[in-house]
Amino acid sequence: MGDLADNALIKKLNEFGLKHEVYSHAACMTADELVANVPLGSDKETHTKNLFFKDKKHGIFLVTHATATTFNTKQLGALLKLEGKVNMRLADGATLDKHLKAKPGHVGPLCIVNDESNEVKFILDKALMDYEVIHSHPAQNDASVKLAPSVLQEFMTKAGVEPIIVDFTAAPQVPAGGAPQQKGEKKQGGGGKQQSKQNKKSAKKGDTLLALQWKKEENFPMWYSDVIVLSEMISYYDISGCYILRPWSYKIWDLIQQWFNEQLLDLDVENCYFPLFVSQDRLEKEKDHVEGFAPEVAWVTKSGETELAQQIAIRPTSETIMYPAFSDWIKSHRDLPLKLNQWSNVVRWEFKDPTPFLRSREFLWQEGHTAHATYEDADKMVMQALDLYKQVYQDLLCVPVVPGYKTEKEKFAGGHMTTTVEAYIAGSGRAIQGATSHNLGQNFGKMFDIKFQDEKGETKIAWQTSWGLTTRTIGVMVMVHGDDKGLVMPPKVSPLQAVIVPIISKKLTGETADPYCKAILKDLRKLGIRAKYDDRAMYNPGWKYNHWEQKGVPIRIEVGPMDIEKKQTRIVIRHNGEKMDLPVEGLGSVIATKLEEIQKTMFEKALKARDEHIAKVTEWKDFVPNLELNNLVLTPWCGGEHQDWEEWVKKTSREESLKARGEEGEDERTATSVAAKTLCIPFDQPELPEGTKCIASGLPATCWCLWGRSY
Amino acid sequence: MGDLADNALIKKLNEFGLKHEVYSHAACMTADELVANVPLGSDKETHTKNLFFKDKKHGIFLVTHATATTFNTKQLGALLKLEGKVNMRLADGATLDKHLKAKPGHVGPLCIVNDESNEVKFILDKALMDYEVIHSHPAQNDASVKLAPSVLQEFMTKAGVEPIIVDFTAAPQVPAGGAPQQKGEKKQGGGGKQQSKQNKKSAKKGDTLLALQWKKEENFPMWYSDVIVLSEMISYYDISGCYILRPWSYKIWDLIQQWFNEQLLDLDVENCYFPLFVSQDRLEKEKDHVEGFAPEVAWVTKSGETELAQQIAIRPTSETIMYPAFSDWIKSHRDLPLKLNQWSNVVRWEFKDPTPFLRSREFLWQEGHTAHATYEDADKMVMQALDLYKQVYQDLLCVPVVPGYKTEKEKFAGGHMTTTVEAYIAGSGRAIQGATSHNLGQNFGKMFDIKFQDEKGETKIAWQTSWGLTTRTIGVMVMVHGDDKGLVMPPKVSPLQAVIVPIISKKLTGETADPYCKAILKDLRKLGIRAKYDDRAMYNPGWKYNHWEQKGVPIRIEVGPMDIEKKQTRIVIRHNGEKMDLPVEGLGSVIATKLEEIQKTMFEKALKARDEHIAKVTEWKDFVPNLELNNLVLTPWCGGEHQDWEEWVKKTSREESLKARGEEGEDERTATSVAAKTLCIPFDQPELPEGTKCIASGLPATCWCLWGRSY
Repeated sequence: MGDLADNALIKKLNEFGLKHEVYSHAACMTADELVANVPLGSDKETHTKNLFFKDKKHGIFLVTHATATTFNTKQLGALLKLEGKVNMRLADGATLDKHLKAKPGHVGPLCIVNDESNEVKFILDKALMDYEVIHSHPAQNDASVKLAPSVLQEFMTKAGVEPIIVDFTAAPQVPAGGAPQQKGEKKQGGGGKQQSKQNKKSAKKGDTLLALQWKKEENFPMWYSDVIVLSEMISYYDISGCYILRPWSYKIWDLIQQWFNEQLLDLDVENCYFPLFVSQDRLEKEKDHVEGFAPEVAWVTKSGETELAQQIAIRPTSETIMYPAFSDWIKSHRDLPLKLNQWSNVVRWEFKDPTPFLRSREFLWQEGHTAHATYEDADKMVMQALDLYKQVYQDLLCVPVVPGYKTEKEKFAGGHMTTTVEAYIAGSGRAIQGATSHNLGQNFGKMFDIKFQDEKGETKIAWQTSWGLTTRTIGVMVMVHGDDKGLVMPPKVSPLQAVIVPIISKKLTGETADPYCKAILKDLRKLGIRAKYDDRAMYNPGWKYNHWEQKGVPIRIEVGPMDIEKKQTRIVIRHNGEKMDLPVEGLGSVIATKLEEIQKTMFEKALKARDEHIAKVTEWKDFVPNLELNNLVLTPWCGGEHQDWEEWVKKTSREESLKARGEEGEDERTATSVAAKTLCIPFDQPELPEGTKCIASGLPATCWCLWGRSY
Repeated sequence: MGDLADNALIKKLNEFGLKHEVYSHAACMTADELVANVPLGSDKETHTKNLFFKDKKHGIFLVTHATATTFNTKQLGALLKLEGKVNMRLADGATLDKHLKAKPGHVGPLCIVNDESNEVKFILDKALMDYEVIHSHPAQNDASVKLAPSVLQEFMTKAGVEPIIVDFTAAPQVPAGGAPQQKGEKKQGGGGKQQSKQNKKSAKKGDTLLALQWKKEENFPMWYSDVIVLSEMISYYDISGCYILRPWSYKIWDLIQQWFNEQLLDLDVENCYFPLFVSQDRLEKEKDHVEGFAPEVAWVTKSGETELAQQIAIRPTSETIMYPAFSDWIKSHRDLPLKLNQWSNVVRWEFKDPTPFLRSREFLWQEGHTAHATYEDADKMVMQALDLYKQVYQDLLCVPVVPGYKTEKEKFAGGHMTTTVEAYIAGSGRAIQGATSHNLGQNFGKMFDIKFQDEKGETKIAWQTSWGLTTRTIGVMVMVHGDDKGLVMPPKVSPLQAVIVPIISKKLTGETADPYCKAILKDLRKLGIRAKYDDRAMYNPGWKYNHWEQKGVPIRIEVGPMDIEKKQTRIVIRHNGEKMDLPVEGLGSVIATKLEEIQKTMFEKALKARDEHIAKVTEWKDFVPNLELNNLVLTPWCGGEHQDWEEWVKKTSREESLKARGEEGEDERTATSVAAKTLCIPFDQPELPEGTKCIASGLPATCWCLWGRSY
């Protein structure tokens, strides 16, 4: 964080004698975070969104617009009357630093004065001029400057910058089926209150339904944020790293829970609930374990106005909460195995960039904790749990995963051995840890005195496991399957599997459509299909198509006047856009079969995309070039026992990547590190010919290891 | 809390020149709390449990025993060879204060020196003499004195007290089916480590299964604590007010959830999840609301070693967390109604005595939050939610409730009107609030700017409701139905509905019993009955009978050699002990019918017990006498608008109760206040003849109001 007193832009404002106010706030990486975390005084004030584009043909652009303004690059091309193909891409950090002397996420309009090359075209949103106060970053994202629009313009004049002021409402919006305007309802426009609301984007009611502003290939992180908000999965919240799980995402978690609980029943694992809080003594009992979590622990120190005598931690995980009770309950081999699970919230106060679902400060999970009489029993449990995780990803979410062992360096703090399922996100070329299952050995048993008498009367220490699956699953699913229209949901976890939309017009009244559609609905529901008949008169069919596409519903069933005449319906498959006319007679069972097909095809598609991006590499020279192709890399590996070769790979891959890209450095704060790390040692090992050398150390290889850039 | 420097008993120890150490700790009301919260240095140390009894025939007794010692009064009678009927009851607070100058929960062995009357017989557990250090309260429950046993005895000698040292292991234990001792397994006895464990009581493995130490009629609170621990519902935890919900209680919550979620589906209420944390600004936005919760709010002020810039509250309830999002989502009448629910944990850091399920600092609940276009819609929702609560209590838990309105004084902080279902606990003669459903009016809508345009284009404020049901339900169910053998579970929420126990002996081998029992199990499960075949060879049938009785399983199915011969089984019904022989042919459907019958009968029994304890009273003079009969009191009521007549009733009923009992005061800290409060104005109103006067004010009555002592 910079010191405001030293801030060059603030100095410049003072130098010019311009009226302004500066204030500090929590660091915000995105405009969404800013809007959610930094409240404004009134509707007459706004934050800005600042985008820095590079277009091979048309040059470099800084766009500053009001957060309420809808913006996309095509529209900008049209407004500026740019000729030929417009292909604006967000510029990289190095270009940004070179021109604006700012890091990604720190940019504001004032930064334009740093452009000594005079190459950057500065586009200013006309709507900003209608506000009384504009808040923007002075090249640091933990502070904002308050300026009147006139002062902003004066600043530009004095600095010799000529902004291009553009009216974004003057260009055609991204097309979408428009809902008919309701009589007497005010049109939502201008800089008024309605527009300045953070979640305006998710408003399903205005006169237009907003389309995604970002393409998946164009800007993956922005696309992701767009998809989860527009589909009504997530709303942002005023505490950084905490998000609202709306019904459309929570229902997925609910369906995963239902499935998972059924499997636990078969494994004789019982659900229970342990406290949210843990005393400092207990938390710190297992030293390796606490070291892994201590920096991220949230501490309660007060109740009401009263200081607590001893501070109390909120669980980051529940080993230290549960195992003292295990010690009380377990006395004899007759008490084993003890197999418990709980569904709960945990808190890890991370300072890395938070991302909804993938990395949040509070998240939901299940945590299984078991104790066994032998190592073998524990090991079996670890593998059973991991297999459930594999099934959740592959069979429910259609996301292929690689199961394997974590290396010593990456295993669970305090455990003996960790297994993992690793997924691949094609959109970012990165791997992501899907879920882990740990063999804790006897380490916690020793620390927490979990002893039992075996059948011979000898005292033994119990063998333990713990394993967890989180709401991250939902984020991975979105990233893998979503497209430029929005979510694409695998049928098994989709809150709705089919939606029936009547094409109401002069030729078809609601009264005629109603019985026809309701009969279809009944047919579907009878077969256990999660279906809905969208009979809302206030929205037109086009709006509804877009709405349910954004939400990723696997099958749309359209009913038009001709369909009724022909006793048929038009089916549209979300994931591939396939359309077909099907007779209503027996429609339910056809749809049921289609849903199974979709589930299968979506997995195969993801599997193909993933497999195309796993490269088998035996020489170091091919390592980074493969990362640059967005590949995961499978290499021979020595096990890294003699030296920290994992660290070497991290460091070297980072350096070589940056060199290859011609960038001088990467932002420490971004999650998008270019270094590769070990993902796992896959269970499924290709043949390793005698004499194969480790890709890093050159020592004899002992196994194949999977590497990649990772979340 | 007393000041240790002024403590008379410590002064006496110093005066006598006896070696000791004193230390402070969190106040602990019970020995269980002490064991859970105040750790000992080693297995050679122990806390004490101190009981103060009065027996009309045999006088007054102080019993001090090691926490690991199993004790009951019958045994004491036998050991002391007391003649005639032994009827020891815990003495009341006044008697305790008179003789030992200590409050309930503050007693230790040293207190005996305060008995100037020399009436108290001091019974000291012989097992205490085997420890190296004894920890006990010096008449204050936030401190303990550490003494060697020899020093304790020297203290007594110097103070002129002669303790009666008793070996509690020398008397016959409470009978229970003994499990055969495993070869080579150490017998658990003496003062060793196994015995000193807190949860030893819940050990299902030692050589005996422990029976309840308390009878429901003898000491209701101790009975309750005994039942929930022995049945493996609850384990105590080292943070006061937090408890472990073991699978046997969590499963009940799970079954309630499943049922409730199905009903929500019918009401179009969707599940979601909002963050655990709330910023101070938001929490304090609605003044009345925050006043209701502020003293109990837990604050996070640190993450790792870092102080947070702004402290963050843990939700005590989620109105202030959800409603800013409601404001973002609701723009038009088309967005209404918005009906959300979440299942979550909440934290209220209360300083009243915590009681598992009934009052804990963290608890689980569902909270419904809805917004509507009209008052009428909101009101309908409030009543629908309350009706679900009534069904949970009556139809699932077999607990009759009185639905009604809360008075202005007792309504939800910040709301417009609160409805409630009130249950009755015969064991304590007290009412308990079962669940509440609030009509919030437009109050929160105004504070959180939840506005919408109606069909005419006019801006309106939304009408809201919130409603919650907690794990308290489980505690109420235990209190209403449990008996001296343990839990009694209503079939609909019992984790197991029937358990099959083979009577293995010389006449019946496991091999013979197995196929017979498994066929029964299959038959039951096919009909959806939650059944178990307890084929564990390590426990004998008597042990199993007791075990499943303690856990309250509605039906036990015994299979002996004669049963197999006759193709029958012996059925034992938990709640009334009824036994019958039934043919195995068609057993499943007979059991299914029996379960329905049990559900019905258990409700009727509880209803009768409740109805016998609702007294209709029209004159004040009958009010307190009815409370003393453990009754709830239904009276004419003026509404209390002109003056705080509710407060008057509280105060006057308390004074008159204490006078009637001849006690001089009651402990402020105990939950067992003798004052009566309003429970509700029942929906179901008896006729109110013209001219009826309010029982308190004498003003014209406007309704009937239900009063009672309450949790």
